[in-house]
Amino acid sequence: MTASPSLIALDWGTTSLRAYLLARDESVLARLERPQGILNVPDRNFDAAFAEAVGGWIGRGMLPAIASGMIGSRQGWREAPYADCPAGLDALAKALLPVETTNGVALRIVPGVALVDADGVPDVMRGEETQILGQFAAGESGVAVLPGTHSKWVLVEQGRIGRFATFMTGEAFAALKGHTILGRLMTGDALDGDAFGRGVDHAAHPQAGRGGLLHRIFSARTLGLFDRVKGDALHSYLSGLMIGAEIAEALAWLVQSPTRVTVIGAPELSALYVSALARRGIASTLGLPDAAARGLLRIARAAGLVA
Amino acid sequence: MTASPSLIALDWGTTSLRAYLLARDESVLARLERPQGILNVPDRNFDAAFAEAVGGWIGRGMLPAIASGMIGSRQGWREAPYADCPAGLDALAKALLPVETTNGVALRIVPGVALVDADGVPDVMRGEETQILGQFAAGESGVAVLPGTHSKWVLVEQGRIGRFATFMTGEAFAALKGHTILGRLMTGDALDGDAFGRGVDHAAHPQAGRGGLLHRIFSARTLGLFDRVKGDALHSYLSGLMIGAEIAEALAWLVQSPTRVTVIGAPELSALYVSALARRGIASTLGLPDAAARGLLRIARAAGLVA
Repeated sequence: MTASPSLIALDWGTTSLRAYLLARDESVLARLERPQGILNVPDRNFDAAFAEAVGGWIGRGMLPAIASGMIGSRQGWREAPYADCPAGLDALAKALLPVETTNGVALRIVPGVALVDADGVPDVMRGEETQILGQFAAGESGVAVLPGTHSKWVLVEQGRIGRFATFMTGEAFAALKGHTILGRLMTGDALDGDAFGRGVDHAAHPQAGRGGLLHRIFSARTLGLFDRVKGDALHSYLSGLMIGAEIAEALAWLVQSPTRVTVIGAPELSALYVSALARRGIASTLGLPDAAARGLLRIARAAGLVA
Repeated sequence: MTASPSLIALDWGTTSLRAYLLARDESVLARLERPQGILNVPDRNFDAAFAEAVGGWIGRGMLPAIASGMIGSRQGWREAPYADCPAGLDALAKALLPVETTNGVALRIVPGVALVDADGVPDVMRGEETQILGQFAAGESGVAVLPGTHSKWVLVEQGRIGRFATFMTGEAFAALKGHTILGRLMTGDALDGDAFGRGVDHAAHPQAGRGGLLHRIFSARTLGLFDRVKGDALHSYLSGLMIGAEIAEALAWLVQSPTRVTVIGAPELSALYVSALARRGIASTLGLPDAAARGLLRIARAAGLVA
């Protein structure tokens, strides 16, 4: 039997906390999710939030625990310095940060990953590195996108994070929709697949003779004004335009276009990316459920915490 | 003597109303500015706002009046249909829209200008066409930018508006600064020339291997986090990044880079564009004061309203 509990694993982000009780074969024996992201923990008492979340699992014997995500940021429990790219299981395992807990559980925090990009500017991730290492097998290579507020594109090289880039697509979309003229003609936010596709295609054009994103977003105004996109479809149009722009930028960033991209994220948003990538002729693989939990187990194993 | 009043001219936009009493030689005999943009006129009673603004000039004899800007939009006094590109003095003069006024002044509204861009999407301007025609002489060619909430770049061909493009730079900047994580590390908004220049330069890099705007704006976060741009300089850095991105897009849109650009706008903002253009090796000409008033007189003359 391998299905005895071996690890308590936490994917602890800005807005939510997901905890897993894991067996050494990566199977999930128990799980819970709470809205106790690091910004919502009362009095920033992470120790209490941790004890409360995993307390029910401690009676089964003293297990090691490991956490990834913003819990290791400056605003979290304790700041875990970034590991440098390229970063794989061994590098992250070596850089685990032990944290004192009053319930006696030996908790370690996975570091984020940082690099200096081709422009000489730092880029960072926290939590996504663990999802990537849970998704990709040792030695495997590929391209992944983790869509969201701050989308990450990751070039995985032989099971390690080779390089990555952040795109502020989700947050920029929300700001443009909520706080510029572009939201004023929108009358709903149900998905309109045709309008979404038009937005994606519009973003795919080369810039020469046409202009780029700062020009193209204005089309979400004029196409509405001239009644060429209905008010209830403008939200989908702008969403397609922004996701399409992210993909165009990411393909330029990669230099060599991939034939397949692994999409790791929430189902609805992932479906939009799969659809947008298909319009660019790129196939998708949907990420595994609980990639973070698998990644946490693999890092714990690399650190010798789990046999 | 040519300095007798010949025309009442109004530059009537979204947030302000500028009125001019003009002589036929383009000299300004009197002027006033009120915060009565079309969104601030009580009960949308434009007739009363007009009478109140120009009433003091009517005693001198019944002059013709002409207005440009958002007063001719759907939200304004009466909608003046767009003229198509290319548009010069004659085309705009022919399309003037007469409006009834209770004070008996014969008022005409200048139409906006529209085109369908290379992506097949409409683009529009209202008010800027008049500034352009006041800035450029008949037969003159060049490139102009009118920076602002929605910056316009205009290719002027032999005294006519050949083509143009809108870039939502100012509004996108405000939304990103005010409503995303990028504003959180900002501790002031005084101009820091070095940080502004760094932003401009950062935006100028080609995208291959690097990514574009959705990626680069994240640098306003990470350079702050890693203390490579101080909190009180981040505002200028992001401003430079956005204006630099606009210039990069506009140069792609123009296809052939100009050696000189005419910058028509408020002095402080224009100075930022002059500085950003210089970093791209492009010289600037500052626009004439009261370009709108000149344009209005020239259109009125082309329409036979002024001798």
